[in-house]
Amino acid sequence: FSSKLPNVKTTIFTTMGQLALEHNALNLSQGFPNFEPDPELINLVTKAMKEGYNQYAPMAGLMALREGIAQKMEELYGRSYDPDTDVTVTVGATQAIFTIITAFIGSGDEVVVLKPAYDCYEPAIEVNGGIVVPIQLDNSDFKVNWKEFRSKLTPRTKMVIINTPHNPSGTIFSETDMLQLQKSLKETDIVVISDEVYEHIVFDGKLHNSAAKYDDLGQRTFICGSFGKTFHITGWKMGYCVGPTALMREFRKVHQFNVFCANHAVQKALAIYLKEPEHYLGLNDFYQDKRDAFLHGLEASKFKIKPCQGTYFQLLDYSGISQDPDEVFAERLVREHKIASIPISSFNTKGVDNKLLRFCFAKTEATLEKAVEILCKL
Amino acid sequence: FSSKLPNVKTTIFTTMGQLALEHNALNLSQGFPNFEPDPELINLVTKAMKEGYNQYAPMAGLMALREGIAQKMEELYGRSYDPDTDVTVTVGATQAIFTIITAFIGSGDEVVVLKPAYDCYEPAIEVNGGIVVPIQLDNSDFKVNWKEFRSKLTPRTKMVIINTPHNPSGTIFSETDMLQLQKSLKETDIVVISDEVYEHIVFDGKLHNSAAKYDDLGQRTFICGSFGKTFHITGWKMGYCVGPTALMREFRKVHQFNVFCANHAVQKALAIYLKEPEHYLGLNDFYQDKRDAFLHGLEASKFKIKPCQGTYFQLLDYSGISQDPDEVFAERLVREHKIASIPISSFNTKGVDNKLLRFCFAKTEATLEKAVEILCKL
Ligand SMILES: CSCCC(=O)C(=O)O
Ligand SMILES: CSCCC(=O)C(=O)O
Repeated sequence: FSSKLPNVKTTIFTTMGQLALEHNALNLSQGFPNFEPDPELINLVTKAMKEGYNQYAPMAGLMALREGIAQKMEELYGRSYDPDTDVTVTVGATQAIFTIITAFIGSGDEVVVLKPAYDCYEPAIEVNGGIVVPIQLDNSDFKVNWKEFRSKLTPRTKMVIINTPHNPSGTIFSETDMLQLQKSLKETDIVVISDEVYEHIVFDGKLHNSAAKYDDLGQRTFICGSFGKTFHITGWKMGYCVGPTALMREFRKVHQFNVFCANHAVQKALAIYLKEPEHYLGLNDFYQDKRDAFLHGLEASKFKIKPCQGTYFQLLDYSGISQDPDEVFAERLVREHKIASIPISSFNTKGVDNKLLRFCFAKTEATLEKAVEILCKL
Repeated sequence: FSSKLPNVKTTIFTTMGQLALEHNALNLSQGFPNFEPDPELINLVTKAMKEGYNQYAPMAGLMALREGIAQKMEELYGRSYDPDTDVTVTVGATQAIFTIITAFIGSGDEVVVLKPAYDCYEPAIEVNGGIVVPIQLDNSDFKVNWKEFRSKLTPRTKMVIINTPHNPSGTIFSETDMLQLQKSLKETDIVVISDEVYEHIVFDGKLHNSAAKYDDLGQRTFICGSFGKTFHITGWKMGYCVGPTALMREFRKVHQFNVFCANHAVQKALAIYLKEPEHYLGLNDFYQDKRDAFLHGLEASKFKIKPCQGTYFQLLDYSGISQDPDEVFAERLVREHKIASIPISSFNTKGVDNKLLRFCFAKTEATLEKAVEILCKL
C-alpha cells in the first residue's frame, strides 16, 4: 500500500509527553490540567451510570445537553441554535473538527489555515484530498493581515479555519478581526470552522468574540467547543459543535458513521452541570491567576515573554538563551533540565522557527513554581 | 456546497429508535441490551475517576488495556500482537472501522463488501472516494460464493470487509470460509477489515473463527472488537483494533487527529475488568438462553425463523404474513403493533428485499416475552 499521509508523524503531544515521562520531567507540553475536576461532576457521572445511562446515546447527543449548549450560545453570544438540528455532541472538539473537514473537503478543495496552527487541521485536510493554503500570522503579534488573507481566497477555497483564543500564541481575535473575516467571505459560499475551545479562558477583562455573534459569519460557521478544556476533564473526551442546519445535516452524515455518538453517562452529567453558569464563568479569573503567577516568576529569567490574552498556554522566546532550533532546544530542556514544552515549529510551516516554546500553565501552584525555578536558571 | 454523501440518510438505527419512542413501542431495533452492566464495572470507572484518570489517555490507549487485549488475542486465537505497536483502543468499533477506511482508501480504490452489511461501511468508503464492490450473500443461508468473490477482485481492490459473527444474519464464517478467504487474497496486498464485535456471542458450541487464527490472513487484517457488545456498555463507546505493525502505523496517523484518544477512566476500568476471562467467556451461554427463549416463543407464530449461530440478532421471515416491502412492514409493526425491528433492506443493495426483519434479543426476559406475545398475534 502507499500511505495517504506520507509526511505525517506521531503528534508532537505524544512525542513530547513520552519524552517527559522517560526523563521524569515536569510536563508543561501537552495541554491538560494536572489537577482534578470538581468532585460533583464525577459524582454526576457515577449517578448517571447507576441510573442506567449505559447504552447508546442519541446519535446527535442527549437532548438535555444539546439544549444546554444552545442556551449557553444564546445567552453568551446572542445567537439561537435549534438543539434538534443545529447542535451535535462530539467525542471532543478534535472529532468535531475532523468530521467537519471530512464532510466538506474533497479532492482539490482549498482550505485556508492561519499558521502557526494546532496540528490536527492539516492532516484532516490532506487525508481528504484537500489543499492547505497557509497564511503566516505576523511573527511578533500573531495578527492576521486581512489584505493578504483576501488575496489567498480563490474559487477553489471551500473552507477557512480560525481559532480564537489562539493555540499556541494566546492571542484573541478582536471585533475588527471578526468583522474583517465576515466582510472577506461575503458573496462566497466558504464554510468556516471556528475553533473556540478556549472560549472561557480569556484574560484582562477582554471578551471572547465568538463567530456566533456575527450575523453573516454565523450563517457559514461551525463553532467547536470543548468540555474537556472548560471543566478540567480532557480525558473524558467530550465536546460539541454548533452550526447552521444545512451544514449540520452534512456533518451528521459523517458523524453517525465515524463515532455514532459520545459517552452517554458523561453527557447526562454535563447536561446537569452546565446549567450553572458559575461552573464556567469563573474560569477566566482562575487561569488569569495562574498566568500571572507564572509570568511574575519568569521576570527573573532570560526568556522574552509574549503577551497572552487567552488559552492556558504561554509562549516564551528563548533567543536570549540559545540559537538552537526550537525542537533541539525543547528536547534539551527535557533531557538536561527536566522540563517539557512544545516547540512552536511543530505548529508552523516547515522551515519557520521563531525560537518560541509553548508552556501549558494549567498546572498546580507547586508545579508552576518548580517550572519557574528551572526556567530562571537558564 | 455540494454534498459529499448525497445519498446518505440518517442511519436506520436513529430512525427506528425515534419511531419506537414516538409510538411507545417495544424497541428491538437498534442493537443494545436493555439491562444493566455489572455494577463492579461501574464501580471501577468511578474509582478510576476518583484516582485521577481524568485527563488525556495515551493516544493509542492505556498500556494496561492494550496488554490485556493482546493477551486475550493470544490466548483465544493464538496470535501475538505487540501492545506497543499493534493494538489501539478506539471510541467503539465504529470509530476503528471509519479510521481504517480513511487511512487506506482513496479515490477510485475498490472495497469488497458482503451484502447485507452493517450500515457504516459504505458511507465511510464513499466519503473517501472509494468504490463499493458489493457481493450478495446467498439469499437463504447467507453463505459466500468464493468463486464469485474471487471474480470480483481486480488490481484496484484495496480492501475487503468481512464480519463474523455476521450482523444482521447471525451466520458465522466457518473454517472453510476463512481458508477460502485467505487463499483468495494470497499474492495480493489487499487489506482486510474483520469486524468481530460479536466474537463472544457464538452459539451451539461453535467456535469463533477469528482472522487472527490464520497466518497469512492475519498479516493483512485489522480485527475490530467491542467492549460495548461484550460488557453491555454500548453507551460507553469503547472498542479497539489490532493489526500488523505497518498497517497500524498508518491507522494511528488518522486516529490521532480524528479522536486523539478514548475516555481514560473507562480504559482504566476495563484494563482491570478484562483480566478475568469469566467476564466474557460466559457470554455465549447467556445469549444462547435468550435466543432459545425467544425462538421457543415464536414457534407459535407465522414467522419463518432463520438460523442464528451468533450475534444478538434474530432474522424473521414475514412472507407468510405480508407481502409488503420490509420498510413498510417494519413501520407498520411499530405504529400498529408497538414493536420495532430493523428492515434488512437497509443493510442491502438498493432494490433487494427478502421480507426479513431483524430483532435484537439482548433484552430482559420480560421484554422478550412481551415481544413474543405481540409477534405471535400477527
Ligand atoms: C489532543 S492533545 C493536545 C492538547 C492540546 O490541545 C494542546 O496541547 O494544544
Ligand atoms: C451504532 S447503532 C447500531 C448498533 C448495532 O450494532 C446494530 O443495531 O446493528
